[in-house]
Amino acid sequence: MPTTARRDAKSVERLLRPRSIAIVGASATPGALGASVLANLDRLGYSGEVHLINPNRSEIAGRPCLKSTDELPFGVDAAVLAIPKAGVISAIAGLARRGVGAAVVFSAGFAEGGEAGRAEQREIARMATEHGMLIEGPNCLGFVNYVDGVALTFVESQPAPLRGRPGIAIVSQSGAMACVLGTMLASRDLGVSYSVSTGNEAVAGVEDFLGPLIDDSSTVVAGMIVEQFRRPQEFLALARHARESGKRIVLLHPGRSSAARQSAATHTGALAGDYALMRAKVEGEGVVFVESLEELGDTLEICARAPHAIHSLGRGTVVVTESGAFKALTLDLSEQVGLSLPTLDDQNAPALRAVMPDFVPVSNPLDLTAQGLVDPDIYRRTLEALAKDERLGAVVLGIIQTDAATVDRKLPAVIAGLRHFGSTKLVVFAGLDEGAPVSAQYLHDLRALGVPYFPSPDRAMRAIARLAAGAVHAPVAAPAPLTGEFPRVCGVIPEYQAKRLLAPLGFPFPKGRFVHTWDEARRAAESLGYPVALKAQSADLPHKSDAGGVVVGLADTVQLKSGWDRLHSQVARNRPELSLDGVLVECMGRPGVELIIGGRNDPDWGPVVLAGFGGIQAELLHDFCLILPGERPDAVRRALLGLKAGALFGGFRGTPELDLPALVDLIGRIGQLLVSHPAIRELDLNPVIAHPIGHGVLALDALILAN
Amino acid sequence: MPTTARRDAKSVERLLRPRSIAIVGASATPGALGASVLANLDRLGYSGEVHLINPNRSEIAGRPCLKSTDELPFGVDAAVLAIPKAGVISAIAGLARRGVGAAVVFSAGFAEGGEAGRAEQREIARMATEHGMLIEGPNCLGFVNYVDGVALTFVESQPAPLRGRPGIAIVSQSGAMACVLGTMLASRDLGVSYSVSTGNEAVAGVEDFLGPLIDDSSTVVAGMIVEQFRRPQEFLALARHARESGKRIVLLHPGRSSAARQSAATHTGALAGDYALMRAKVEGEGVVFVESLEELGDTLEICARAPHAIHSLGRGTVVVTESGAFKALTLDLSEQVGLSLPTLDDQNAPALRAVMPDFVPVSNPLDLTAQGLVDPDIYRRTLEALAKDERLGAVVLGIIQTDAATVDRKLPAVIAGLRHFGSTKLVVFAGLDEGAPVSAQYLHDLRALGVPYFPSPDRAMRAIARLAAGAVHAPVAAPAPLTGEFPRVCGVIPEYQAKRLLAPLGFPFPKGRFVHTWDEARRAAESLGYPVALKAQSADLPHKSDAGGVVVGLADTVQLKSGWDRLHSQVARNRPELSLDGVLVECMGRPGVELIIGGRNDPDWGPVVLAGFGGIQAELLHDFCLILPGERPDAVRRALLGLKAGALFGGFRGTPELDLPALVDLIGRIGQLLVSHPAIRELDLNPVIAHPIGHGVLALDALILAN
Repeated sequence: MPTTARRDAKSVERLLRPRSIAIVGASATPGALGASVLANLDRLGYSGEVHLINPNRSEIAGRPCLKSTDELPFGVDAAVLAIPKAGVISAIAGLARRGVGAAVVFSAGFAEGGEAGRAEQREIARMATEHGMLIEGPNCLGFVNYVDGVALTFVESQPAPLRGRPGIAIVSQSGAMACVLGTMLASRDLGVSYSVSTGNEAVAGVEDFLGPLIDDSSTVVAGMIVEQFRRPQEFLALARHARESGKRIVLLHPGRSSAARQSAATHTGALAGDYALMRAKVEGEGVVFVESLEELGDTLEICARAPHAIHSLGRGTVVVTESGAFKALTLDLSEQVGLSLPTLDDQNAPALRAVMPDFVPVSNPLDLTAQGLVDPDIYRRTLEALAKDERLGAVVLGIIQTDAATVDRKLPAVIAGLRHFGSTKLVVFAGLDEGAPVSAQYLHDLRALGVPYFPSPDRAMRAIARLAAGAVHAPVAAPAPLTGEFPRVCGVIPEYQAKRLLAPLGFPFPKGRFVHTWDEARRAAESLGYPVALKAQSADLPHKSDAGGVVVGLADTVQLKSGWDRLHSQVARNRPELSLDGVLVECMGRPGVELIIGGRNDPDWGPVVLAGFGGIQAELLHDFCLILPGERPDAVRRALLGLKAGALFGGFRGTPELDLPALVDLIGRIGQLLVSHPAIRELDLNPVIAHPIGHGVLALDALILAN
Repeated sequence: MPTTARRDAKSVERLLRPRSIAIVGASATPGALGASVLANLDRLGYSGEVHLINPNRSEIAGRPCLKSTDELPFGVDAAVLAIPKAGVISAIAGLARRGVGAAVVFSAGFAEGGEAGRAEQREIARMATEHGMLIEGPNCLGFVNYVDGVALTFVESQPAPLRGRPGIAIVSQSGAMACVLGTMLASRDLGVSYSVSTGNEAVAGVEDFLGPLIDDSSTVVAGMIVEQFRRPQEFLALARHARESGKRIVLLHPGRSSAARQSAATHTGALAGDYALMRAKVEGEGVVFVESLEELGDTLEICARAPHAIHSLGRGTVVVTESGAFKALTLDLSEQVGLSLPTLDDQNAPALRAVMPDFVPVSNPLDLTAQGLVDPDIYRRTLEALAKDERLGAVVLGIIQTDAATVDRKLPAVIAGLRHFGSTKLVVFAGLDEGAPVSAQYLHDLRALGVPYFPSPDRAMRAIARLAAGAVHAPVAAPAPLTGEFPRVCGVIPEYQAKRLLAPLGFPFPKGRFVHTWDEARRAAESLGYPVALKAQSADLPHKSDAGGVVVGLADTVQLKSGWDRLHSQVARNRPELSLDGVLVECMGRPGVELIIGGRNDPDWGPVVLAGFGGIQAELLHDFCLILPGERPDAVRRALLGLKAGALFGGFRGTPELDLPALVDLIGRIGQLLVSHPAIRELDLNPVIAHPIGHGVLALDALILAN
């Protein structure tokens, strides 16, 4: 699909808040698309002009019908195409002639339906661009604006007005998923500000709608379901903007598995992108990444119900339970989902100690035992003590609810405690026994206090872990510009040239000389000191080892000569057509641990650095991490230590601690280089040898690909 | 805790179905433990004798009270101790004097409460053993027998009679968790046959109750929550028995994290065991292992509602959805949870192709799009086509429910389709939009057809994946006895002796000679052929490399002599007190891929073989697998290929395919050896070198530890 230019916010506003609407394919038949669109507008009490278009009727329910779009007054704000696919292109042409601002296209069968459909979608995009018309769709379900009461959708849901509740903006490529999420949120009595589905995104994409929806004061959080971002850089800028506005974006984006990426490509007509890179980039801008609809609903509920608490979730969570066995289950889960449960004990939490019965040791998870049954005030006292604890940003109340009688004994005490909580910490009520009979009144009371009611502590812990990951991720700054010259380059830059360019920028390489003759090689080796390595150099020989172009461990002149001859004869045999630029003579580095470090300027997502251990670690176990340029050194350090074999950095079974600071420094330099020189498509340092702490790292090889 | 002997089933039966009951600590105060126990018995209409004991009252609610246990008639079946901890020991003594069959002890503060508590619990166990009395607890919530209507618990839940529904037996160490699970199951209208909590298990453990509950014809499945099995071998035998009886056991057992194992040990007073070994053993006996309460409830619901379908879950699952975006999410999740979704397409599923609209391609997940809205009969046709597909054992209906009107359009059609399904496949209705308004009548209709209603397809997929893992795991047979002599051994058996013992049994070792003098060494090397290795031998030198006791790569007599001298001087320097048994001269093996293979007879769980790659793979990445003796070769093969670096077996980046059959054979031999010789505590072959296919494997070292 062609990348379309960014719509200006005004044309999106005009669609979302139209003063006049045309329904192409208006119908009197209940259940027909056109009839459903009109019914939705009527139900919401839409007060603007509505023009009905149906060539076969003069009126529908007492309203006049136009025969054709040609009869429309000029400059209608928005049109809905409630017609079969076959009529879409000519209808858009007709709407364009009448200066209609935007059109919503429900019909499917375009880019997702084969080559003919793709051509038709391109034609829609061309017409829209030519006439400055916004298109939502095709293959979408339209939108509902719950703030102003406008719906251009045939889904006959019952939009609940926002009524001043914190609004969740739903932005989804899939219309079905937007509906599903809307139903989930409504069942929890959460308010939606807007629900927009963009479908195939012939013209307008999620990037066009997100900005205006985020900027709307009714929206506190956006929930997005996206299969493929078509304009990644715009999305990243919007995510940055949302973070600066204090509003979260929660994103559900399938594609962890290659099967899912393939399916998404078939479904949307978009190409499968680099999932890991996308994830690293959007998380870098503070987007909360979730992996299921359930997690999406759960995190959105927390954001909408307790927006005051989100910023402190990076601190830590305490899980209050009433069962020792559940305590153990909680510890398993917290490790699995990466939720931090700060250690609390009798010594370090005196306020909590003071309010517990003697036989209850202070811990986290905190097991109140069955004490709440005989002394329900323990919930208030516990909450009061937890409120003051600066180590905590969230409290999960994993209460056993059992039956209505037990609920009536415990819940009033919990609610009384919450009324006097006096803290901005998040509290989630998460009963242990899903399905327990808790009355609507208790749910209402909890929610009125900003406390989500969850069916299980597990779900609360997962959602908090997702949000906490976003909360601790500090904004990534643009890296400082690289000091030092770096010329414009193009094509494959072989090792000797790449090293010559990078060494002045502080990249660590072995000492070496680029030579052309045996005599030069001998003098170079003597001056560098034995043992040395020889490496054949040519832009046409990026995989020089495979061609026999690398000879190592040459200890003296005799070995150097035989190595020199071997190298040349091997390359000549394997690549007879090739003429070498020359040979690199290099000091042999001392042994160390092998890493692979690289970077690239992705055409969609921009610069990123990749680091991992060499050998089977990288290739078989995919043990590498992605690091964004400008990431702070401590975050880079954490990412490296988080590798599966990250313990190697600290020294393992007698091996020494490695020079992690030097590695962090090298990664920082690569980030600076990629940002300063967008023409560098790829940079590979493979291998990089990490030496013991204080002895630095050495990149044994280097390769640059540039535009 | 001492391992207690197995109770006979009769004494458990006597407790669960008592003809007479004594309540020690009977009370007239509502909410007091003794009052609650009596209220529960009355509510259930218990018709046997009830003896109330309270020294301070002559009657409670018109029933006479005894002053003391001494006034009890001889031979009451069961007593409940509804009294504070301080009185427990003397009360048990009193009950024992009156020949009471069993006692339920609620009080806490025994083994979980420090050394004094542990001593008191030992005293309870001693008295019980002496008098042949069964004890449930201490620190338990008693039990409810829903089949016969008997409850010895103070939890004032409202036990719903079983009413002929398939019964779920709840067996939990934690009383609170038993309650929580009971509430969860009741909210789904599922029947419980028994709910038993065993607490600290001073005398009777989950192993005592499980057998009678499984054997009860009212029970179709057992749901267990266990922090630590005290009698592992008994549990394994019961699991085997349950599988043979066609009844499942679903087990929730915390301990994946070391924090959880530590917490469980503190909570129950039991020692933390080997979690991975426990899991391998219980799964080997067909136990379904789950990791959360939610999964426990979900799998139990499937087992209780669709017991006919469980055996076929190993086949494959089809997920029917109504959204392309959800299709991609499903593929991500199926990969994550290991659920097999057989490929369905227009060619290989003609029956399905025939009933789909043209624009719906056949696939799995199958996206019906919004077709169900305009043509609800598509659900019936789809189910009919899926019913016949032999590749499938389960169908997940991920339907979009939206609102009451949509539900009323879709659900009757789905239910009509299910009525004519005519297949024993599992069908789970799993709406995409959790919280959608689905009426109780639809839930009832679905359930009456054996179809669980789940809040999300994700949960259905997780539960099916857990059950499928159990369904495909064939029973592990006892391995064939080892042919060949193996003497009784004891203590540390050093390499030369271990190899001498194991080689005749078919264990592959390098050719070698055990020598004492330089002269013998020289002759051995000449006869074996150079190059050779020398290895110092002594039972007191298990880590000979660390002491300089291994010298390798000796290519001729000169090198052999200097190696011989070096070995002796190094060992003499590092271990001056040591006198060597001798030195092993061995042929140098050819290079290959290094593995670590070992085995042990765990005192709790029995024999197990451990296999993994050597180096950092094993130690840093914990890349090893546990294999049960008697496991079929194809399952061993799968386990090895499932290692993180398992792709190495197939050849990776130019390395050859390895001799997996030889490795499988070696693992089988180790299993036979461990089973035939329980005195072998540990066997280590480290390293084992795997050679290219056809060239076998060689164990370079061997060490045995025996009792």
